[in-house]
Amino acid sequence: MLFAIIMAGGSGTRFWPKSRRNRPKQLLNLHGDATMLQQTVARIAPLVPPERILIITGADQAEATREQLPELPASNVIAEPCPRDTAPCVGLAAEIVAAQDPEGTMIVMPADHVIQPEAVFLKAVKAAVAVVDADPASLVTFGVKPTRPETGYGYIQRGEALESRDGVAVNKVVQFREKPDLETAQQFLAAGNFAWNAGIFVWRARTILHEINRHKPLLGAALDRVGNAWGTSAGPEVLAAEFPNMERTPIDKAVMEKADSVKVLEVVYDWNDVGDWRALRPLLPVDDHGNAVQGEVVAVDTKDSILISDDGGLIATIGLDDVVVIQSGGATLVARRDQLDKLKGLVESLKDGRHASYL
Amino acid sequence: MLFAIIMAGGSGTRFWPKSRRNRPKQLLNLHGDATMLQQTVARIAPLVPPERILIITGADQAEATREQLPELPASNVIAEPCPRDTAPCVGLAAEIVAAQDPEGTMIVMPADHVIQPEAVFLKAVKAAVAVVDADPASLVTFGVKPTRPETGYGYIQRGEALESRDGVAVNKVVQFREKPDLETAQQFLAAGNFAWNAGIFVWRARTILHEINRHKPLLGAALDRVGNAWGTSAGPEVLAAEFPNMERTPIDKAVMEKADSVKVLEVVYDWNDVGDWRALRPLLPVDDHGNAVQGEVVAVDTKDSILISDDGGLIATIGLDDVVVIQSGGATLVARRDQLDKLKGLVESLKDGRHASYL
Repeated sequence: MLFAIIMAGGSGTRFWPKSRRNRPKQLLNLHGDATMLQQTVARIAPLVPPERILIITGADQAEATREQLPELPASNVIAEPCPRDTAPCVGLAAEIVAAQDPEGTMIVMPADHVIQPEAVFLKAVKAAVAVVDADPASLVTFGVKPTRPETGYGYIQRGEALESRDGVAVNKVVQFREKPDLETAQQFLAAGNFAWNAGIFVWRARTILHEINRHKPLLGAALDRVGNAWGTSAGPEVLAAEFPNMERTPIDKAVMEKADSVKVLEVVYDWNDVGDWRALRPLLPVDDHGNAVQGEVVAVDTKDSILISDDGGLIATIGLDDVVVIQSGGATLVARRDQLDKLKGLVESLKDGRHASYL
Repeated sequence: MLFAIIMAGGSGTRFWPKSRRNRPKQLLNLHGDATMLQQTVARIAPLVPPERILIITGADQAEATREQLPELPASNVIAEPCPRDTAPCVGLAAEIVAAQDPEGTMIVMPADHVIQPEAVFLKAVKAAVAVVDADPASLVTFGVKPTRPETGYGYIQRGEALESRDGVAVNKVVQFREKPDLETAQQFLAAGNFAWNAGIFVWRARTILHEINRHKPLLGAALDRVGNAWGTSAGPEVLAAEFPNMERTPIDKAVMEKADSVKVLEVVYDWNDVGDWRALRPLLPVDDHGNAVQGEVVAVDTKDSILISDDGGLIATIGLDDVVVIQSGGATLVARRDQLDKLKGLVESLKDGRHASYL
């Protein structure tokens, strides 16, 4: 059976002031008619029924997450006791899946990415499941065909071609690469055998647990203790005791870069990890002057800006160029677009002072 | 007796969104502990008791004006039926003064200028009154000694020296000049015999009415009809009937540029007509990066900007330079400082659309 694991953590700094500690990106409706989490669930719903969709989220966000997904059993929203990066998260989900179906396959995906069109995505998921069914030892990862020398994404170097499954190319993985500089990204694009690491994985629960045990035995043992207690009355207590001691490490580093049977599917859809306000721009309607506008806004001689009024108030601008103005929850951000990287630091700085209520 | 006439009209566009139609500049507390109107009344109070201070304002603003000045008799706040520029305003005030004291002297001043120090101002007022007492035909105007080639002010060219009254130089006026271009302003400054027209006048009520009758006989006759009815039960009705038909003209043009006995006092105080947000900057505390800040503000890598949060909300900025951010009454203005001249047009444009509630 196929299970969907949606990783819905996040600290809520990149989309401040709209995102907050208890309302991070995936719980926001940044574009379209639903929150990013709801869109993610809807995207996989044609292949996975609600009872087999699991959301792994933070304790602060579990309640809001359940509210947004009333069609899911409440127990399918699982709160991590503390953030421990993706390896413990994925391992926990694998334990839960394996307990329900020892032969269960799981797709792991972030809650806060945009993928279009959905039909292409679903076709790729089916191909990935077929690859895993044919070779249950496979660890399948999605590699998005790059369209520009993007420096904000990680890359996967594709190696030997293995097969073409329903028209989707399956290759061995040579290496994973962190976010490159521009020159390197241009080389990757020119080389033709690099893909964006979309953070989507398909594998048997048992297989990934086996690999975690092999490469991170302490983590694997801790996960097994949680898995053994899961579904019993001791489950929450064991999770609370074990999880904080698990190694804080991403699944890419802990397993994918070391495992043998890693395969990459070349997927050809529009993909946007919506990393910050800038990345939202292509998803919003844009006026004649290149402004992405939401809510009550009057813009005079303003261009290439992102202007969002979320509180019902009016934003009026004069003479802006490449500026982000966001009003939400009683706070207003006004930032030059090319300096948005400083937003994280700004939000961090709010912790210390009298503005902590805006976190 | 000396009467003070405070002209407190204004449409509330230059300080939008803090200023609104029924809350124009003079009713705002833009700096310090009191509104500009209250500061103006306090400034003249050492020389004029409350019962001889008259405020001429608009019908929309009369109520708020009375609330701000509880020490004045309510009837001393006079609402013009409609805006008719300063000649009808001054003439109406002169009729009211003359009815109370045929020999009464009046000082006319705007409600929304900043003057410091007050002692220098009061000394100039006393000198002006002495000039009028010595020659009741005098029309005295205040000329501020210019300190820079300002293009935003009108100028007065000083002519023949007449006297020095208590150390204040009194000269004939050669001409009034509208706001000059920069080159002309530089010439004025270099010439040494030009002063800024501060919009403050001292004269006998009877004298200015005589001059209005001489240069604008239709206006003078209409004013006399209002004056004759003033204080009777027909007063308000006659005012409402006559005022809208009066010529819309400034007192400078209607009388001062034509009259013979115009004298200019050279006053040497800091004067700021607080024309828009930019002019407010020198009056506010400024941080190490040249930012004038009021209310809850967090500024990262931001300089030479004006950042005011008036609603209690938080303004957070990143990477701004020379930008004005004002949050007030549910609206937020974000404008490049060098393009603030477009604010008036922006506010005008709100009239037509669904944002008229922000006027």
